[in-house]
Amino acid sequence: MNALVATNRNFRLAARLLGLDSKLERSLLIPFREIKVECTIPKDDGTLASFVGFRVQHDNARGPMKGGIRYHPEVDPDEVNALAQLMTWKTAVANIPYGGAKGGIGCNPSDLSISELERLTRVFTQKIHDLIGVHTDVPAPDMGTGPQTMAWILDEYSKFHGYSPAVVTGKPIDLGGSLGRDAATGRGVLFATEALLNEHGKTVSGQRFVIQGFGNVGSWAAQLISENGGKVVAVSDISGAIKNSKGIDIPALLKHVKETRGVKGFHGADSIDPKSILVKDCDVLIPAALGGVINRENANEIKAKFIIEAANHPTDPEADEVSLIN
Amino acid sequence: MNALVATNRNFRLAARLLGLDSKLERSLLIPFREIKVECTIPKDDGTLASFVGFRVQHDNARGPMKGGIRYHPEVDPDEVNALAQLMTWKTAVANIPYGGAKGGIGCNPSDLSISELERLTRVFTQKIHDLIGVHTDVPAPDMGTGPQTMAWILDEYSKFHGYSPAVVTGKPIDLGGSLGRDAATGRGVLFATEALLNEHGKTVSGQRFVIQGFGNVGSWAAQLISENGGKVVAVSDISGAIKNSKGIDIPALLKHVKETRGVKGFHGADSIDPKSILVKDCDVLIPAALGGVINRENANEIKAKFIIEAANHPTDPEADEVSLIN
Amino acid sequence: MNALVATNRNFRLAARLLGLDSKLERSLLIPFREIKVECTIPKDDGTLASFVGFRVQHDNARGPMKGGIRYHPEVDPDEVNALAQLMTWKTAVANIPYGGAKGGIGCNPSDLSISELERLTRVFTQKIHDLIGVHTDVPAPDMGTGPQTMAWILDEYSKFHGYSPAVVTGKPIDLGGSLGRDAATGRGVLFATEALLNEHGKTVSGQRFVIQGFGNVGSWAAQLISENGGKVVAVSDISGAIKNSKGIDIPALLKHVKETRGVKGFHGADSIDPKSILVKDCDVLIPAALGGVINRENANEIKAKFIIEAANHPTDPEADEVSLIN
Amino acid sequence: MNALVATNRNFRLAARLLGLDSKLERSLLIPFREIKVECTIPKDDGTLASFVGFRVQHDNARGPMKGGIRYHPEVDPDEVNALAQLMTWKTAVANIPYGGAKGGIGCNPSDLSISELERLTRVFTQKIHDLIGVHTDVPAPDMGTGPQTMAWILDEYSKFHGYSPAVVTGKPIDLGGSLGRDAATGRGVLFATEALLNEHGKTVSGQRFVIQGFGNVGSWAAQLISENGGKVVAVSDISGAIKNSKGIDIPALLKHVKETRGVKGFHGADSIDPKSILVKDCDVLIPAALGGVINRENANEIKAKFIIEAANHPTDPEADEVSLIN
Amino acid sequence: MNALVATNRNFRLAARLLGLDSKLERSLLIPFREIKVECTIPKDDGTLASFVGFRVQHDNARGPMKGGIRYHPEVDPDEVNALAQLMTWKTAVANIPYGGAKGGIGCNPSDLSISELERLTRVFTQKIHDLIGVHTDVPAPDMGTGPQTMAWILDEYSKFHGYSPAVVTGKPIDLGGSLGRDAATGRGVLFATEALLNEHGKTVSGQRFVIQGFGNVGSWAAQLISENGGKVVAVSDISGAIKNSKGIDIPALLKHVKETRGVKGFHGADSIDPKSILVKDCDVLIPAALGGVINRENANEIKAKFIIEAANHPTDPEADEVSLIN
Amino acid sequence: MNALVATNRNFRLAARLLGLDSKLERSLLIPFREIKVECTIPKDDGTLASFVGFRVQHDNARGPMKGGIRYHPEVDPDEVNALAQLMTWKTAVANIPYGGAKGGIGCNPSDLSISELERLTRVFTQKIHDLIGVHTDVPAPDMGTGPQTMAWILDEYSKFHGYSPAVVTGKPIDLGGSLGRDAATGRGVLFATEALLNEHGKTVSGQRFVIQGFGNVGSWAAQLISENGGKVVAVSDISGAIKNSKGIDIPALLKHVKETRGVKGFHGADSIDPKSILVKDCDVLIPAALGGVINRENANEIKAKFIIEAANHPTDPEADEVSLIN
Repeated sequence: MNALVATNRNFRLAARLLGLDSKLERSLLIPFREIKVECTIPKDDGTLASFVGFRVQHDNARGPMKGGIRYHPEVDPDEVNALAQLMTWKTAVANIPYGGAKGGIGCNPSDLSISELERLTRVFTQKIHDLIGVHTDVPAPDMGTGPQTMAWILDEYSKFHGYSPAVVTGKPIDLGGSLGRDAATGRGVLFATEALLNEHGKTVSGQRFVIQGFGNVGSWAAQLISENGGKVVAVSDISGAIKNSKGIDIPALLKHVKETRGVKGFHGADSIDPKSILVKDCDVLIPAALGGVINRENANEIKAKFIIEAANHPTDPEADEVSLIN
Repeated sequence: MNALVATNRNFRLAARLLGLDSKLERSLLIPFREIKVECTIPKDDGTLASFVGFRVQHDNARGPMKGGIRYHPEVDPDEVNALAQLMTWKTAVANIPYGGAKGGIGCNPSDLSISELERLTRVFTQKIHDLIGVHTDVPAPDMGTGPQTMAWILDEYSKFHGYSPAVVTGKPIDLGGSLGRDAATGRGVLFATEALLNEHGKTVSGQRFVIQGFGNVGSWAAQLISENGGKVVAVSDISGAIKNSKGIDIPALLKHVKETRGVKGFHGADSIDPKSILVKDCDVLIPAALGGVINRENANEIKAKFIIEAANHPTDPEADEVSLIN
Repeated sequence: MNALVATNRNFRLAARLLGLDSKLERSLLIPFREIKVECTIPKDDGTLASFVGFRVQHDNARGPMKGGIRYHPEVDPDEVNALAQLMTWKTAVANIPYGGAKGGIGCNPSDLSISELERLTRVFTQKIHDLIGVHTDVPAPDMGTGPQTMAWILDEYSKFHGYSPAVVTGKPIDLGGSLGRDAATGRGVLFATEALLNEHGKTVSGQRFVIQGFGNVGSWAAQLISENGGKVVAVSDISGAIKNSKGIDIPALLKHVKETRGVKGFHGADSIDPKSILVKDCDVLIPAALGGVINRENANEIKAKFIIEAANHPTDPEADEVSLIN
Repeated sequence: MNALVATNRNFRLAARLLGLDSKLERSLLIPFREIKVECTIPKDDGTLASFVGFRVQHDNARGPMKGGIRYHPEVDPDEVNALAQLMTWKTAVANIPYGGAKGGIGCNPSDLSISELERLTRVFTQKIHDLIGVHTDVPAPDMGTGPQTMAWILDEYSKFHGYSPAVVTGKPIDLGGSLGRDAATGRGVLFATEALLNEHGKTVSGQRFVIQGFGNVGSWAAQLISENGGKVVAVSDISGAIKNSKGIDIPALLKHVKETRGVKGFHGADSIDPKSILVKDCDVLIPAALGGVINRENANEIKAKFIIEAANHPTDPEADEVSLIN
Repeated sequence: MNALVATNRNFRLAARLLGLDSKLERSLLIPFREIKVECTIPKDDGTLASFVGFRVQHDNARGPMKGGIRYHPEVDPDEVNALAQLMTWKTAVANIPYGGAKGGIGCNPSDLSISELERLTRVFTQKIHDLIGVHTDVPAPDMGTGPQTMAWILDEYSKFHGYSPAVVTGKPIDLGGSLGRDAATGRGVLFATEALLNEHGKTVSGQRFVIQGFGNVGSWAAQLISENGGKVVAVSDISGAIKNSKGIDIPALLKHVKETRGVKGFHGADSIDPKSILVKDCDVLIPAALGGVINRENANEIKAKFIIEAANHPTDPEADEVSLIN
Repeated sequence: MNALVATNRNFRLAARLLGLDSKLERSLLIPFREIKVECTIPKDDGTLASFVGFRVQHDNARGPMKGGIRYHPEVDPDEVNALAQLMTWKTAVANIPYGGAKGGIGCNPSDLSISELERLTRVFTQKIHDLIGVHTDVPAPDMGTGPQTMAWILDEYSKFHGYSPAVVTGKPIDLGGSLGRDAATGRGVLFATEALLNEHGKTVSGQRFVIQGFGNVGSWAAQLISENGGKVVAVSDISGAIKNSKGIDIPALLKHVKETRGVKGFHGADSIDPKSILVKDCDVLIPAALGGVINRENANEIKAKFIIEAANHPTDPEADEVSLIN
């Protein structure tokens, strides 16, 4: 089941619960605007390369649309569409005056030089500049993009529309970016965890955590949980998985990851099978990598008392019938 | 085989004949920009209705993109995409400094009141106004749209960008439309017919014509062919088909059609089975209605010595292997 | 004596007291800019209707001009002109950096459907959009208009000038309107009343109030005065007049008015002749309806010790010679 | 009877003859937009002076509005309104794609220095610049204004909107003005005279002309009529009136007027009572000064066989019942 | 040695200390943009006068460029260039997000009437308006200019770009200028003095000050130092120099200067030779007039223990080898 | 004597002959606007390089300013200034409605790759885009630049101002360039030659020509002169000089130059000393390379009867006293 089908199904379930008029339901499912553009750039070796970029703008009823731009070889119109819709619901649930959007370019950023990435980003911006804007749609970094990408978008956008730093968020601090933005998603994970535990009469302090994924979100979550007294007993990333039932020394692990680009080989913990990370014994499991990792096959084996969804839709929609939370 | 697959296949065949670099071939197949928008309007009865509109901009290397906007219940992204690409090749072959585009809204214009059509057109224009323009992309009327539609687009576009009559063609004469535009496609059919016959040592005068379709294109073609001495022996439209081997009196038929909205029942000709029109005996067959009408089944039964393709791709691509022209 | 003559006379008196240079006096009397536009719309039944709209911009020396837009069958250029001038003096006296303006359309809003009102407002906005703006002239609601009217103006204005929420005040909260705006004029009446009573060694608490008019201004004034301990002994509106010398239960009256659209028939008070309301015995009389209600005929019969002018110029200028305040 | 009442009455008569729908008639009587602005300038002596400027835009259904701007001490809103309406009918009757407008400033240009006139024109332009424009409303010179005035308007307008030479007509040749514009109105008088005489089997050559008024229109008319063989037997202007039944030497008179600023004292003719000019014996009488000169009192005494109306409405509307043309 | 040579030499010394890459050093020496314009205005007597205006924009890497506009007969491109560069270093050292610029017009403002100054300022603004702006380059007052000059620039700039109060600083309070701006430079001198004295275990209170120059900077510095307990023992300006070893009564002196336009003749102090002011015995010497006043000739005679540089580069660069500070 | 001094001297001589008012003379000597910008680009090897670009706009009294942009290592502000002034006189003498401008970048285009030249041109355009424009200043190709350079300027300019093909001339035909532009300067040489010879009762046919310089100007002049019957007996370029007293076969020489990039080694002519070319015996000498080649030293040795100045100021101004033309 693809991401869009799953997202639409979830929305329809919610619409039914809300007793939404069917015409309004249909209108909310159709995105406000979808755009697909060809971006052709000269590569450093002089040959041409064409990439396809997307921007899906789902809904602007509550304010300017907001959502990331990802650079990934498997960016897919349906997934972008689903994520744009989810941004609408997220901003609405958080009651901030924004709508939802999402975009991306089908490319492997690690195969492109910095100057190729700059050219690609500028060409993409030239093709969509009239559809984004401070009051319209405000891009942000996402998988494969970051502050530098936002700086390029801002610079190219400003050629057409005058200097407009508010056209992107997640830009470098020196260009007006927000302090604390780097840690923001991880800090949100901490807040959600605290809220959930408080509801059950517990606090972060003293709980045992397993964190799947150690990128921007997972590593900041680990650091903040650890600073708040939580014990991180296992983490994994693309390089491998490690555990230490006494609690991993997160500052030391961060240093190790900075040097080696992965958690693998960290001296203060034991290596374990990455596949076992989700079913590891713990109080709180935080999937912070790809979506759909919890599914029919492994749902019943999960031992965590609480699951905090840090990744977008970590639970496979097909597994919905299964009772997931112990 | 859908229209896009067929169009892409034809382009690839041409690219191979031209020895086109494969990167360039790929780049020419990917459209410059595709846009899909939701258009929600209040209907006259106060309920909401949502429609999906498209604009595909295929290529602007040779100049501003150009192509119609159609209102039809079965407007399909792939077909719009194919037609946009064909516009690029048409403007290039005719060596006029334009690129190719096409658009449409999925709606049945005959189910909508004039004021609903106006609201729908204005909302669609509001969603795409930043992507069209005198130097960018210039819409034109197509199936289900006409001068009035262009006038609405022009008026709404001008609110955002200042008065810009050149942003659409096919507008009313009073707003700066071109004289003769009405007859232009039909006159092009006459020119193509003359050129083909001249190559075979013949002229329009004295030839027997069968015209399938009697809309704007077919009726003007009939009128101009008749004025140039051609004998139109059979015509058809959605109401039925008629024949008169001595030649149909076209001015009289035009009057009849204006009054009854169809060729059926015209006194100066006999009614025939509409299915037989393509295989009627004649010198020149002019399909001027939908695409794909000539196919494996009927190709071998066609008796015309010449076929003039007035419709977009009237020949079913699957029938390509069949030898079509006698 | 019409409103403009009276306003000009008052200004000339003030100018004389200030020793104003006669050229400057003349320049201050001539409005900065007056505009009159024809607004033709299709009515719901398909027929055309023409209305005349006005905007008078009196003076921008102290900042952007500010003033309401009223929809009323008897909107009159001279009255609009007078009210625009009064806005200049009001903003100057309150020392806020704005000038004065006023506008309106000659129409009966209760004779028009919501969609006719929307069309009328949009056409009016199209005709004046270049003359208003964040730094130029900022409309607000007035008689017969409200937040929805401002939302239409904002939307239509933004088509021409980009999204500009600050171009109108009094817009819906969701579009950036100010909290508390609804009660603001009534709260100002309370503040003025408190200030006047304090000067005379009294407070609102314990005083007996008569309020003529129970629209937005009068009803909020009654509610706030009542919350501050004042006793509202009589109120009137277009439906009739009521009194209760023990003090009317304002929350109950508000509920009654919401249900029946008038004060008439309220169970907690006795019906009285609406003409008698101004001369009712009380401590404070608050005229909060039309202008000119206090005149030569009734001035000497007023029994209130204090009059708070909540309406624009409630005192008939011709009655100036009469000693009004007891 | 003022100019607006007369113009409206004439329009209503025409509307009745055309069987115009009463709503459309009403809509055509109400101007599209009327604007009145205060223009305060420092005079050369440092004191302030305030002037009131007008622009009435009557109708733009057929194209951008067009009409002069006059500087005259008695510019009156009603007259400007009437003249704007007449511009709509004139452009429509001549079938050129323009609507009608008119404007002016209440000032005596001969009391102002060149630099005061420049300041006044620039301030007026600043107040109306957003309402005029190439596609909206295109001013032209009129009484008391000329190419220099248009050059100031163009320069000030261009500060706000970019260089736009087409925003005014009647500008200096060096700024893109049209050759022959100077003589255009006088040449139109010649054309009208020729057409009228031809209808009666006559030509200009040999006819005797009396021309009341010797400004731009009258002097060019005299020159062109004289070049075409007409005999100008009497002319008048503000300085006096002259006659020569053998025909006045127009080139010599033009030289005299250039030197002395009036026709009075011209050696090649005799002085006559200016009041008698209209009733002088001649074939063609051309009133080319103010309106309303032909009225109940003098209509029956006019001896000319033909009257060519070079002034705007030279015939007093009250005199309509009188049979004017012999 | 001219100002630019000296400034460049200082920058090169700093670059060497910082180990700056030579290409970057070269790039930082070349200004971002230099502009020189001819400003021709009619003088009050009707004759033409031409002036040359400059704007040098040195560097915008850290934000919009910022710097004064001076009107002085000896404005010199090289000095403007040097001062623009110094603005870059000043804003960088103070770590505020601005770059550096400077401009001026070669004219003697005391030879021009107010209306000539207005015309000159407006023409200069017309020539540079596209190069300045809120996000680009923000002028400020400097020698020979002030709030009125900024108001003219703002007004003329706004004609071209819409109302933009942030395009200049130092504008009148009523147009959005900042409170305290008048005293700001003098207050900065106080802050610098306090910081220097504190470093040496002293405070302003009780120190003896000599202030050379009594314009905006010197007089405010004197007033603030005096308010903080400092004893100002000598001051000078263009009118002369005065001393009072018991401390000059600054409020009284300010009153005297307001009345007589100079310090000369102040009753509460003795007149001294202006040349002697720099070498007067004191604790702190504050040169607050022209640059280069401390040089090889007088450096060794200075008796002050501390020198606070209130003027731009008061120390002659040629005197660098001399040990200046006791 | 540098180019600016010489140009100013010539202008002053002309001004004296015309009896020009001294204020107007001064005003015409001062350029309207001069701009100098830093252009820093990354080179292909990743290092930074800074270049200085100029644009001098001399006078726009007669229309938009017009003049080339040259890329040359020795572009000098004074020479650019002089050439801008000469453009004003050229357009005025030819009576076309343009003013004069000139610009350039100090760089050696042969040291830069195509992509470095593109980056440099785009950065230069970004720094001056607000000062050029269709109605303001229209660049053209010059030494070291060509249609490709203009295409880059047009593309970058259009990002900021919308698509504006008229902002440069000399652009590629496909982007709207003019047919015949390539040969235009050479054809002008032919026209001037024809006019001069006709004045002396001669024609091009049969005359013997020496052409110094064989770039765009010299080679087209040679070709057109040869087509008109002139005999080109000697030519030179940077590679060397050749002669053939029977007349050089120009089409063959053009082919040779295309292949070898120089006239040297052409089989149909003899090699001569390049220094002797100017003093070669002939009827018409055409210097078509750098300025100042004819000077005190060689002026008396020139044997040509006529000199046609195809280069800008080929005659050394210091040599003015010498009688140059035989």
